[in-house]
Amino acid sequence: MQGPRRRIASVLALTPPQDAVVVKGWLRTIRKSKQITFLNVNDGSNLSGIQVVVGDDLPNVDEVRHLSTGSAVAVTGSLVASMAKGQEVELRATKVEVLGAAASDYPLQKKRHGFEFLRTVAHLRNRSNTFGAVFRVRSVLAHAIHCFFQDRGFAYVHTPIITASDTEGAGELFRVTTLDLDQPPRTEQGAVDYSQDFFGKPAFLTVSGQLNGEAFALGMSDIYTFGPTFRAENSHTTRHASEFWMIEPEMAFCDLADDCDLAEAFVRHLLTTVLEKCPEDMAFFDQRINKGIIARLRDVAEANFERMTYTEAIERLTASGESFEFPVFFGADLQAEHERCLTERIVGRPVFVTDYPKEIKAFYMRRNDDGRTVAAMDLLVPTVGELIGGSQREERYDVLAQTITEAGLPTEAYWWYLDTRRYGTAPHAGFGLGFERMLMYTTGMQNIRDVVPFPRTPNSCDF
Amino acid sequence: MQGPRRRIASVLALTPPQDAVVVKGWLRTIRKSKQITFLNVNDGSNLSGIQVVVGDDLPNVDEVRHLSTGSAVAVTGSLVASMAKGQEVELRATKVEVLGAAASDYPLQKKRHGFEFLRTVAHLRNRSNTFGAVFRVRSVLAHAIHCFFQDRGFAYVHTPIITASDTEGAGELFRVTTLDLDQPPRTEQGAVDYSQDFFGKPAFLTVSGQLNGEAFALGMSDIYTFGPTFRAENSHTTRHASEFWMIEPEMAFCDLADDCDLAEAFVRHLLTTVLEKCPEDMAFFDQRINKGIIARLRDVAEANFERMTYTEAIERLTASGESFEFPVFFGADLQAEHERCLTERIVGRPVFVTDYPKEIKAFYMRRNDDGRTVAAMDLLVPTVGELIGGSQREERYDVLAQTITEAGLPTEAYWWYLDTRRYGTAPHAGFGLGFERMLMYTTGMQNIRDVVPFPRTPNSCDF
Repeated sequence: MQGPRRRIASVLALTPPQDAVVVKGWLRTIRKSKQITFLNVNDGSNLSGIQVVVGDDLPNVDEVRHLSTGSAVAVTGSLVASMAKGQEVELRATKVEVLGAAASDYPLQKKRHGFEFLRTVAHLRNRSNTFGAVFRVRSVLAHAIHCFFQDRGFAYVHTPIITASDTEGAGELFRVTTLDLDQPPRTEQGAVDYSQDFFGKPAFLTVSGQLNGEAFALGMSDIYTFGPTFRAENSHTTRHASEFWMIEPEMAFCDLADDCDLAEAFVRHLLTTVLEKCPEDMAFFDQRINKGIIARLRDVAEANFERMTYTEAIERLTASGESFEFPVFFGADLQAEHERCLTERIVGRPVFVTDYPKEIKAFYMRRNDDGRTVAAMDLLVPTVGELIGGSQREERYDVLAQTITEAGLPTEAYWWYLDTRRYGTAPHAGFGLGFERMLMYTTGMQNIRDVVPFPRTPNSCDF
Repeated sequence: MQGPRRRIASVLALTPPQDAVVVKGWLRTIRKSKQITFLNVNDGSNLSGIQVVVGDDLPNVDEVRHLSTGSAVAVTGSLVASMAKGQEVELRATKVEVLGAAASDYPLQKKRHGFEFLRTVAHLRNRSNTFGAVFRVRSVLAHAIHCFFQDRGFAYVHTPIITASDTEGAGELFRVTTLDLDQPPRTEQGAVDYSQDFFGKPAFLTVSGQLNGEAFALGMSDIYTFGPTFRAENSHTTRHASEFWMIEPEMAFCDLADDCDLAEAFVRHLLTTVLEKCPEDMAFFDQRINKGIIARLRDVAEANFERMTYTEAIERLTASGESFEFPVFFGADLQAEHERCLTERIVGRPVFVTDYPKEIKAFYMRRNDDGRTVAAMDLLVPTVGELIGGSQREERYDVLAQTITEAGLPTEAYWWYLDTRRYGTAPHAGFGLGFERMLMYTTGMQNIRDVVPFPRTPNSCDF
């Protein structure tokens, strides 16, 4: 009797022998000897798939021997210990049903493909070893994020995607509109009349949920967001996408030190979880993508993160005697070369750099008593540099109103944000983590286009 | 010695007496008797907050007695059994620190406010009883969704938000653009030149991740999405928002019956989890928002869901003798009045209606052998009607290519979707659940604007 389908990952965990095991998946390889055909079948539940052994007594053995890579099959058989190298068990087929053959121009043939080519078949690349592993780890990492915060009593808040404000006055924004671009309505003065747009005013895609998150933290105490954010920057780097996911926790009654504590526990939890839950995929990344990554991540997960002020960082960079492309002085923004020098060579492990000059940080960061720095922090980690950025927020109404003005932002647009400082303000802090950056760090993948299911970048919005 | 802050929900679970307990939160009410002041302090971790008792020997008792609703305070004290009605424990304050007073025009005074007014202070309403409860349940429900799928080995896939295609050829779309609306670039023929737009072509906000999800299911077998989706419909109802979150699982090797099985287990899991994890908030909804909702949800969670074909549904509606505003005949789309009659009076519990006429369903649904119906299902539940819609997908290349053409859609835009049927196609199915609809069903809240942190609707994009 045929049982229900089981995931291959769970079948491989069974103790052989087992009869009437049913798996369904896609053919990765087919190898024919005289009387036996070996199929590797993969259903995406793990990296290796399962070896299926087909004897020539199977009624449709001819059909099976003509199958090509990519075909979908349903296999019933007995799970037995395998004599062959590379696997502990194999499935001796008693029945192979062809669900869907693959046309002969199937793009993912056995040979290894370049990532650039695979981006052109983003609808199929999840069937390759690398991308199957990437997207399994992506899912595990996402869930680890939710579990971390939920276990600590944080509320998950969906901050809005469409917004009428530009959070930081910093990003380049995508406009969201239903106006007819060919013939937009005009005011009497001839300007585009946004009062006739869908929302009755100009609207954009969000660059951050932070300000909305703050409003929720100042009532629910501990919240986090995890949603898509957008940048309309025309940058063509391996680290920037136009659409990416971001995690932004925000905590009331929390100062900069508490903020660093949480970020450290968070990173440790994520790395530990992925290493524990994805051993096969991580071994693949270690072997094929980024040698030694498992040991490096484990080191980071076990390290105590260092903390130093920006002022001290500048001193130690200056004293290091290293030569940099960009000069090092108080007031300079830290460049990638400085960040990596700090974390890799000066400290040798993750380091929070705190208390940056106010001129190089955002208006909402809390002014320190020294008058020249703000309670900001960046977490720098070896090999990638900045992973997390956060700050204690300016909770004092008067100071915040002033920094909004100083930043040249329209105070009236921030009426509700300022309101939260008029009605029971409290110290609070938070940080942001780019989900894809964390995923690249965890897998060792070098291009953000290769960790997003269907990446969006300038001039690229396919699938 | 002062300990670290504890969440009020966890303090209430302690066994009194406990010394040096620290809570921080916002003042909901203040009640003064001759020598004692009672504060209700709430930090958003639960509904009730905690009763703080302040004796007149406290050094800053005058400051405390002048506090107004909404102020942020830090309280240190001893947790003791309470003699008063309405709570089992109270906190005898040894110290009350005022973190941030609330200005006297604080909008959330003690009296109950209408939901319509509270929408105008969406940045503060999470501090009210109703909205604190709504957003706690929202978070618990979201996590229950992730846990349901992750525990079953589904991979979470982030399908794209910005898309160049209109999934179903059905929705009204928001355009995403960086073009200058005042002076858009033009082709030689005078048309708007979208080749100069950010993505080199017209781009929109997604209405569904399903087609992308299918491409992942046909490689990873079991996947789900959970992300924002958009409708630029100018509808002003209590059930429609322009931006909402949707959950879309997609399963390979799965037919319509399996799809219904999963949807039934899913709904049961969500209701059971919320009832178990949010007893205080659910009791509030039961008492104040929707009498009897706990019993109704428990009944649904324990019921076996009925299944009937659309054809049978039409017969039973006709035989019911009820009079409807919209006529009932084979080929008619089921209206809310029909759906509620079916689930509430004819069946008396949740019911899947399956196998709808092909003319009233989307092109991607699998054609049944009868030639006139498709393998679609809607889950109808008492009091709200349709909760979930899904289908087995058309996996046969030729049939799918034909339905795309019949629907008047451009075949070339679906090249990659059709590809998945050329390379190892397999039976597969999925469904969609509107997150906010589920949340309204779970809480009894009647307006979608009151279950979204910052709702977006026509002419409304504030905060």
